[in-house]
Amino acid sequence: MRNILVIGAGKSSSSLITYLLSKSFSEDLHITVADFSLDLAKSKILNHINGSAIALDIFNDIERSKAIKNTAIVISMLPAHLHINVAKDCLKFGKNMVTASYVSKEMIALDEEVTKKGLLFMNEIGLDPGIDHMSAMQIIDNIREEGGKMLLFESFCGGLVAPESDTNLWNYKFTWNPRNVVLAGQGGASKFIQEGTYKYIPYHKLFRRTEILNIDGYGKFEAYSNRDSLKYRDIYGLNDILTLYRGTIRRVGFSKAWNIFVQLGMTDDSYIIENSDNMSYREFTNSFLAYNPNDSVELKLRHYLKIDQDDIIWEKLLELDIFNPNKIVGLKNATPAQILEKILKDSWTLEENDKDMIVMQHLFGYELNGKKQQIESSMVCIGDNQTYTAMAKTVGLPVAIATLKILNGEISAKGVKIPVTKEIYEPILKELEENGIIFKNKTVSYLGYNPEHVNG
Amino acid sequence: MRNILVIGAGKSSSSLITYLLSKSFSEDLHITVADFSLDLAKSKILNHINGSAIALDIFNDIERSKAIKNTAIVISMLPAHLHINVAKDCLKFGKNMVTASYVSKEMIALDEEVTKKGLLFMNEIGLDPGIDHMSAMQIIDNIREEGGKMLLFESFCGGLVAPESDTNLWNYKFTWNPRNVVLAGQGGASKFIQEGTYKYIPYHKLFRRTEILNIDGYGKFEAYSNRDSLKYRDIYGLNDILTLYRGTIRRVGFSKAWNIFVQLGMTDDSYIIENSDNMSYREFTNSFLAYNPNDSVELKLRHYLKIDQDDIIWEKLLELDIFNPNKIVGLKNATPAQILEKILKDSWTLEENDKDMIVMQHLFGYELNGKKQQIESSMVCIGDNQTYTAMAKTVGLPVAIATLKILNGEISAKGVKIPVTKEIYEPILKELEENGIIFKNKTVSYLGYNPEHVNG
Repeated sequence: MRNILVIGAGKSSSSLITYLLSKSFSEDLHITVADFSLDLAKSKILNHINGSAIALDIFNDIERSKAIKNTAIVISMLPAHLHINVAKDCLKFGKNMVTASYVSKEMIALDEEVTKKGLLFMNEIGLDPGIDHMSAMQIIDNIREEGGKMLLFESFCGGLVAPESDTNLWNYKFTWNPRNVVLAGQGGASKFIQEGTYKYIPYHKLFRRTEILNIDGYGKFEAYSNRDSLKYRDIYGLNDILTLYRGTIRRVGFSKAWNIFVQLGMTDDSYIIENSDNMSYREFTNSFLAYNPNDSVELKLRHYLKIDQDDIIWEKLLELDIFNPNKIVGLKNATPAQILEKILKDSWTLEENDKDMIVMQHLFGYELNGKKQQIESSMVCIGDNQTYTAMAKTVGLPVAIATLKILNGEISAKGVKIPVTKEIYEPILKELEENGIIFKNKTVSYLGYNPEHVNG
Repeated sequence: MRNILVIGAGKSSSSLITYLLSKSFSEDLHITVADFSLDLAKSKILNHINGSAIALDIFNDIERSKAIKNTAIVISMLPAHLHINVAKDCLKFGKNMVTASYVSKEMIALDEEVTKKGLLFMNEIGLDPGIDHMSAMQIIDNIREEGGKMLLFESFCGGLVAPESDTNLWNYKFTWNPRNVVLAGQGGASKFIQEGTYKYIPYHKLFRRTEILNIDGYGKFEAYSNRDSLKYRDIYGLNDILTLYRGTIRRVGFSKAWNIFVQLGMTDDSYIIENSDNMSYREFTNSFLAYNPNDSVELKLRHYLKIDQDDIIWEKLLELDIFNPNKIVGLKNATPAQILEKILKDSWTLEENDKDMIVMQHLFGYELNGKKQQIESSMVCIGDNQTYTAMAKTVGLPVAIATLKILNGEISAKGVKIPVTKEIYEPILKELEENGIIFKNKTVSYLGYNPEHVNG
């Protein structure tokens, strides 16, 4: 039996482990799940005959080496900054390795040695990064093979709540790390290129410069710009492209309401609010408004941010209870962002039967035989339940599929890689389709970068 | 003759050196001005019989030690981070020292040793910090001596253009370091306390939350909040105070127009604009606006930031020529903030006969014998010309006066100090008055923190 070691048994490992266990008889596999928490590791194996669970402290060199030495291939589902410890052991013991995280500088630095030893360290093979790379490169390579020249690439992805579980005014619940949602877009201006012109959006305008997109069968969505669009020029070989834009998908109206928090300063994670422990939600809101003993917190906020009496944004704020004088923050030495996260969790936590949804859409504009054309490619994945979420499936399945194909020699690349070459993405996308992760492509008339789809 | 060494012969040294030279006969002084540029040092001495100029490389230990060893007292007008080099030599050779800069951690760490050697290192004795400390503490100490309890302290300061030289729509010209003006308010939320409530303003709202103030004879001004108001609780012993606010003064309407640059993202200094060297002012402006081939840059900006047809803000933007397609930025690898600084310098550079103006105002609210009272204290200083600017006078004169009083033993404090005690501020404020730097105090009815003076 061939042993696959999965390090990290968090939420995103569920579908991955189940997939591998389901293949364990036909493929002659034994799956060892290692986690700091033995109980968590056990919960993912569920007494499967071809699975075992072990407790592993990733910082314990002896434990870690031992686990890696006795396996055929290693999957690291650890937080991104910890992969490098696993990678060094894999190099030492001659094991291939798979991760769903952005490839780090430290990982890239191992490329020569990894290649020399005939190994493959496959990174960025989850959802985003992962499925986005593979599905985009498949169409980009097709266009090029036909002799087309790429003019435009826009790519959008979002983790949302499924329509059947969409029960609040924001059309949003936390389906992944809430902290990342609160801090989204911070750390510098967003940069992209539209019809050959570089564009820059500061954080405080990010949620007012959204684009609209349609997904057949699911209606309208909006997207705000990611910070890092330009780096995809190198990764996808799109160096002369006129329009390059990547964005994060939300339901229409989310960003305009979220902007209220940005404008108030509630998403700031850089300083501590005085007396955060004992303050009420209302006092928290009031700390971002000017002092005035004669006006209510409500009126001050409406006036400050010019929210009309009948604006749906107001109902969204009320839904979150940010004016409640009786709800207490109860967090010591908390930043505004930590307090906001706490307030949002009251309203945006998934209920037991709620399902999540992953939405991805790419737009490809190109010129072929003197004619400009456009392809729209969309994928929607709905979670089964709160274990086999859409996020767990779309992150975990490409990792699991890639691992098995590397183990079986179907993917033979060597070195530190990401899945942007045909040999890698073709077989994985095919098997993802068989598992319900399906892109629907359609040819649309060429719009170029369409300013009518841009707000703000 | 007693030798005073002045290190640094920049703009802020003019009035300082002239003052000391004017006292050199009666006080038996010789003034040595040291600068990296011998010509600059010479230009400040102007062949005065009691002055001499030397070239000094502050990083040359031998040169520096030699200059300091042969003097009675040292004034450092270097950039703030370089004082510590001078301080260590002063400690070694047993010399007193004076600076106009915020006292650094490194400087504070020398306190015990300085005290033990019977020396005085006087810091923060320029304008702001300096005159603000002294003028505020004089009134705060008076109130306390009478048995009053401080309820409110607000303090405002600004470097502006004098009314007779105020020739543009912004009522503003650069009278000091332009870069600091462009970056003002960045680096974190502004924090203060109003009637016992902590308030936080994020950078992108800073210029929309101004306060209005009146200076008799000079009309209305506005102020935006400084980042650091709360630290003055410790410095001035105002730990239970209900309202504590410090702000930067501009002419009314400046901040609302400046906010346009903040909103666009033009004050960002954290990334480089592509092709900044060859881009026009118009292209620079357009890079912060959404792509649309059918609309003008002007209309896009008006629409984006909701600027009405007849809004004076628009005229202010036109005055700066930010839509000019023919003016080229001409700066390689420049940040938005650097490009904006370049554009502003075209319009806001002082002309030869222009004069600057320093404005300072404090508000003190207190309770005495059960009655709430308020004092308003204001100072305006107009520059003589572009050598003896208001900035040079208000920064340099307190430094010069303090130096002479330390040398004469009239100030006998020991250790690393700032001028917040009576023994220090009384004689200096008195002599500042004789030199035209005069605070006018008046009792006004107690307003507390007055929300009617708060915009936004």
